[in-house]
Amino acid sequence: MKILVIGAGGMLGGQLIQKLATRGTLNESPIAKITRHDVVLPPPPPHSDFPIETIMSDMAAEGQASAAIKDRPDVIFHLAAIVSGEAEADFEKGYRINLDGTRHLLEAIRLQGPDYKPKLIFTSSIAVFGTPFPPAIDDEFLSAPLTSYGTQKAICELLISDYSRRGMLDGISMRMPTVCVRPGKPNKAASGFFSNIIREPLVGLEAVLPVDDSVRHWHASPRAAVNMLIHGAELDTARLGARRAISMPGLSCTVAEQISALIKVAGPAAAKLIRREADPTIQKIVAGWPQNFNTKRAIELGFVADASFEDIIRIHIADQLQGKLN
Amino acid sequence: MKILVIGAGGMLGGQLIQKLATRGTLNESPIAKITRHDVVLPPPPPHSDFPIETIMSDMAAEGQASAAIKDRPDVIFHLAAIVSGEAEADFEKGYRINLDGTRHLLEAIRLQGPDYKPKLIFTSSIAVFGTPFPPAIDDEFLSAPLTSYGTQKAICELLISDYSRRGMLDGISMRMPTVCVRPGKPNKAASGFFSNIIREPLVGLEAVLPVDDSVRHWHASPRAAVNMLIHGAELDTARLGARRAISMPGLSCTVAEQISALIKVAGPAAAKLIRREADPTIQKIVAGWPQNFNTKRAIELGFVADASFEDIIRIHIADQLQGKLN
Repeated sequence: MKILVIGAGGMLGGQLIQKLATRGTLNESPIAKITRHDVVLPPPPPHSDFPIETIMSDMAAEGQASAAIKDRPDVIFHLAAIVSGEAEADFEKGYRINLDGTRHLLEAIRLQGPDYKPKLIFTSSIAVFGTPFPPAIDDEFLSAPLTSYGTQKAICELLISDYSRRGMLDGISMRMPTVCVRPGKPNKAASGFFSNIIREPLVGLEAVLPVDDSVRHWHASPRAAVNMLIHGAELDTARLGARRAISMPGLSCTVAEQISALIKVAGPAAAKLIRREADPTIQKIVAGWPQNFNTKRAIELGFVADASFEDIIRIHIADQLQGKLN
Repeated sequence: MKILVIGAGGMLGGQLIQKLATRGTLNESPIAKITRHDVVLPPPPPHSDFPIETIMSDMAAEGQASAAIKDRPDVIFHLAAIVSGEAEADFEKGYRINLDGTRHLLEAIRLQGPDYKPKLIFTSSIAVFGTPFPPAIDDEFLSAPLTSYGTQKAICELLISDYSRRGMLDGISMRMPTVCVRPGKPNKAASGFFSNIIREPLVGLEAVLPVDDSVRHWHASPRAAVNMLIHGAELDTARLGARRAISMPGLSCTVAEQISALIKVAGPAAAKLIRREADPTIQKIVAGWPQNFNTKRAIELGFVADASFEDIIRIHIADQLQGKLN
């Protein structure tokens, strides 16, 4: 079992590789090797009983996709993308990385010939959906993205479904919820505050809340997200039929419910570190985001969401703070 | 008002140019010129009070899209595609013509700079939808194509919506019903029989019906289809919002209803020329096609379907048989 992780340097890629290193197997086969691919040098790999190689290259550059799959990995996790804000700010770069890069990968796989048909797990996004929304987005709701990033993800979903239908690869596009609590420093992503208002107060630091308490959103802990990726890799895709793009289960909750969970887990003092500072730009962006889903298909296929936002906070404390509260 | 018609050599392109030549105006502006683009030489142009130029080139070849729009047409009708069967048989050609060709056009427009923002009317297809279907496909139903052709059309829709949202062009993707009665000779398209069983008996010739009488499908006459294209070009796209892909209204009827209309218009002898000869391959393809739609948005936007299948037959007799029945 050889595994290639594209976008291995990202948060989810790092946690996925850590988890695979701990398990040592995927789909009941011992892992022989993981190849980490990224455009920048990822952090040092975790300890593992199998070799972990690293390739640095630009998948969107001619020939790089073929080079990345030259030893024919059995499973490919494709997590690489430039984020929504950057794809919106730089039209050409967004299409080059998020669309052409993925297409080069699919073409490189196809051109290996009919005896190579890897499993491909592609992280898509709820950004493939655009307003107006029904109360809960179901499995038959149209993709009408309102960003170039969402457009690029929706196009890759269509390509992966078509290449899979034609037997050139065995793909699944997983529309991930917003990962929360995202570890690391506060960043400028418009969605950053969903994590900031939990992560920072847990270590005694102030966090800014730019939107109203009533804002509702769709979340998954990093641990739940990694488990979904692994479940996607182990899933019998015959169960998917031709519809290879699936909205993943998540937890729908309001900012008020997030804060209430924070108080339950860490006490009222933590919530006092959340400073309300309205930001009309962020409010406008967030108003266009999905709030709730009915992910019947994914649940039937065995994908599992976090049970509560309190659980999401406890997972962050366990995985990022060594189980300790300040 | 300069107009570019890409795919001008096709049946719909020819009828569109004929109609524009008769009208002499589009969106209340006199037509100064029509440029016909195709990869093969189109038939001689109709008489018109304005010049009709012809460019032959391959839009998917480097630089050809830029050359085709070099005099900055105000309105571009993009009708060119290789058909479903060919895109399925030749994977690379399908993606090259139906996806890359369109993308080159969009990029050529974008690279003209912000002072050029043409209206773009793109003929998409109901092939963007795949089974299982609801009883009628509404405006929020997902695109889950079951052919590479449908995938390519769905991707072009997404691109046109994104380029439009970003102000690079002003596009609309129109998902056309199956055009019926299609003039010309019987061809090998899987959908050909819907037209063959009307067109051939009307001139005293036998036609083969490869499917059951109960098969239901979604039709528009060539005249209705051309009127839709012109309405699309004249529509105020501010009414579309960000969702630039729209299923066009059509007429949903069964093969039995088609035959019943044929008898009403041309008498029982015509229907006797229909020879039933089951074709499992065609039956299987047709079983995956949409049968009925609820095109609320398109109807609100003023797009108009044929009133009955009898009307569709009468339009064929008027436009193709000089109003005369054999």
